[in-house]
Amino acid sequence: MSTEKRIYKPKSIAGFPEWLPEERLVEQKWFDHIRRVFESYGFCNIETPSVEELDVLTAKGEVDKEIYVIERLHKDENDKKEARLALHFDQTVPMARYVAMNFNDLVFPFKRYQMQRVWRGERPQMGRMREFYQCDIDIINVDSLPISFDAEVAAVMYEVLEGLNIGRVQLRINNRKILMGFLQSQGVTDPDDIIKITRTLDKVEKIGEDEVLKIVENDFKDSDFNLASLLPALEIYLDVAPIYNGTEELMENTDFLRSAVKGVNENIVFHHGIKELGFVLDNLKHLPKHAVKGDLTIFRGLDYYTGTVYETQLLDVPEFTGSVCSGGRYDDLAGSYINKHLPGVGISIGFSRLFDVIKQKRPDLIKIGAKSPAHIMMVLPSEEERAHAHDTARTLRGRGYNVEVYHAARKIPDQMKYASKKGIPFVWFPFKDGHQVKDMNGGDQIPADAATWEIAT
Amino acid sequence: MSTEKRIYKPKSIAGFPEWLPEERLVEQKWFDHIRRVFESYGFCNIETPSVEELDVLTAKGEVDKEIYVIERLHKDENDKKEARLALHFDQTVPMARYVAMNFNDLVFPFKRYQMQRVWRGERPQMGRMREFYQCDIDIINVDSLPISFDAEVAAVMYEVLEGLNIGRVQLRINNRKILMGFLQSQGVTDPDDIIKITRTLDKVEKIGEDEVLKIVENDFKDSDFNLASLLPALEIYLDVAPIYNGTEELMENTDFLRSAVKGVNENIVFHHGIKELGFVLDNLKHLPKHAVKGDLTIFRGLDYYTGTVYETQLLDVPEFTGSVCSGGRYDDLAGSYINKHLPGVGISIGFSRLFDVIKQKRPDLIKIGAKSPAHIMMVLPSEEERAHAHDTARTLRGRGYNVEVYHAARKIPDQMKYASKKGIPFVWFPFKDGHQVKDMNGGDQIPADAATWEIAT
Repeated sequence: MSTEKRIYKPKSIAGFPEWLPEERLVEQKWFDHIRRVFESYGFCNIETPSVEELDVLTAKGEVDKEIYVIERLHKDENDKKEARLALHFDQTVPMARYVAMNFNDLVFPFKRYQMQRVWRGERPQMGRMREFYQCDIDIINVDSLPISFDAEVAAVMYEVLEGLNIGRVQLRINNRKILMGFLQSQGVTDPDDIIKITRTLDKVEKIGEDEVLKIVENDFKDSDFNLASLLPALEIYLDVAPIYNGTEELMENTDFLRSAVKGVNENIVFHHGIKELGFVLDNLKHLPKHAVKGDLTIFRGLDYYTGTVYETQLLDVPEFTGSVCSGGRYDDLAGSYINKHLPGVGISIGFSRLFDVIKQKRPDLIKIGAKSPAHIMMVLPSEEERAHAHDTARTLRGRGYNVEVYHAARKIPDQMKYASKKGIPFVWFPFKDGHQVKDMNGGDQIPADAATWEIAT
Repeated sequence: MSTEKRIYKPKSIAGFPEWLPEERLVEQKWFDHIRRVFESYGFCNIETPSVEELDVLTAKGEVDKEIYVIERLHKDENDKKEARLALHFDQTVPMARYVAMNFNDLVFPFKRYQMQRVWRGERPQMGRMREFYQCDIDIINVDSLPISFDAEVAAVMYEVLEGLNIGRVQLRINNRKILMGFLQSQGVTDPDDIIKITRTLDKVEKIGEDEVLKIVENDFKDSDFNLASLLPALEIYLDVAPIYNGTEELMENTDFLRSAVKGVNENIVFHHGIKELGFVLDNLKHLPKHAVKGDLTIFRGLDYYTGTVYETQLLDVPEFTGSVCSGGRYDDLAGSYINKHLPGVGISIGFSRLFDVIKQKRPDLIKIGAKSPAHIMMVLPSEEERAHAHDTARTLRGRGYNVEVYHAARKIPDQMKYASKKGIPFVWFPFKDGHQVKDMNGGDQIPADAATWEIAT
């Protein structure tokens, strides 16, 4: 009788990424860096549960198709009495709920960062991730929020992305009021029409100005505003939309708009937008020239943005399509949960997708190496010397080094091969007649003292 | 017409904990410390998806009542073709699956740590957490795994817990082979009987020796082994079970068992257990006296342990009932996923429950203070000096300090009040005629230079 084992061969689950230890080590470094920058600006961390009540998540009523609900495998009658729970699809809704719930315990302006997993029940064949990390910062205040924060969140994210060593990064910033005011001044006042036009303008980089104008013309053939004057106005608008040189160019270009297009100069929303965007660009002057670009065509999809909006391009990683890091200002996000006026501004990195693209497409930028966090592998010369080897390891650990003690008194070349396979850079020999250390990147084996040795820099 | 807002007042979800920023700041310090210790011993990190295929999770077939399944809110016909997914209830099953799947890419012995959320669909009225963090270390090897790792994981966890400053910690260690061999030598060979007796013996600390023996007597009235000789044997066993003074006492006590109880000396499993436990205790000699206790009654609930088992008590926090940190050695955990023999040893901290109990019951041990990670709040003296204030903040950030710039040129006492409310320890005044800094814990306001200033230690 054969006693064959039943093997359940598992496969990876589409959309739920998982990394090898050496990839995870780099991912951890990214997270550590991001956290360090966030905290250096005084953002505190919060974490919220992975789930919210389904009613909380669907309060905005637009993304319910992508939601994962959870339930107990063996649910019973009692489960029906409880609220239905679902995995959060972003960190903004949970944050809004958190701020509303803990309103009296928080100090405002509330500056928080959040780096958690989010879930979206996308169809897996689209190649999208269904579980991924986001890294968000937001600032929420009561009643009003100074525009200086709109500049700060952009500065923070530039510093974050620039520090990941993924080439040059460019934040593209706009203020929705500019385009909204401009369109209003041309007789476009229906919010649905505004959204439709802005989504079309957004494509100008891809399809060009002529194509964009053709689409608008076609979409609004039968509308009640004056298409004959709108189209040339939009043409002028698109011509001045990209702002490469900060506030001065913004002022020149928008002065031109005000003089060249009838009605614009009288629109107060347009003026507010210019003033706010001007302030933001002014306060990002300390960044390198390529770091910030004003772009009057950027609008972002989400309905709740009311002023500043951000997108971010990796200038040296064309493989990454779309924006790495996006966000904007909102007037009152927690308003559905609390009777307060809580404006905010926030920006978010789609972490896992960014990491995955760089890892796969640009291994030259991301150096995946060691499989272990150990700096040193301690040789075990013999079973009798085990206590001494462990003592030496403890001394080195006490001085901040990560030390793995080899587990068996094998031949020394075998032990060294293990260190090499794991990518551990130093091997330590705790010999009775004097300790030695070897730099595995081609160094000599030299005498060393665990109490004083330092990695040469 | 009144335009009253519809408010959806959210409440916290039972079993899904969430902390305030000042609590989270301490929780982050705990995580950082734990990670630092794990890495200092060369454990690499992995993360697995939050979900596994339901078939993977239920392969062991015992915990299915506690599993949360997930599904898309708007599922369609296509969803039925995909494998059913469920949130993992521990990190051991996912690790076993991970090791099997990535077998060819891992270097063995594979030493990994994992600090993720796990989910259990417990009935919430039991006051249990349904989402919580676990911090696990495990070492997996091919074919055989040296016993030295059984000592190492205990040493790591002692260092972890001792460093959390939650009072004295005691690891209680046993080897299942000792009790199994002992019971076998007394004619108890049915695994179910062994489990039943060990679960009863486990209660000796709570209910006392007499009560324990009474229960065994009652449970096995009608069994086919010799109860008349088993009961006095168990009485002797319980007398020598707690080992306070390491290997020497272990040897004395078990020598006594072998001479006093007939049949024990001939049992080879018993001998193996003693030898292994002796080695483990020997290799933990560097720890303080209270740190490790041998305890021959410890067995742990899980079926898959085959040798060393661990429990951990907080000696100074009686409010924490049960074991803070538990684990053991297993013969072949990944065997259901791959045709290899992969023994391992692991130990796990039930992080969130520990943190929650200490936070609530022992605020004297856990110092919850600042609501912000900022070391310094930068005063904004006037709107004109904004650029200078931000420049100064950048200088200090470049030197490793976390600096929040106050957002508006308010009266200085108002700005200082904000720093005080957030618990930021230093306030910086970037005055034109010379910078000053104030230690908010009662220090004077003294001249300072952002390029050289240090927090006095």
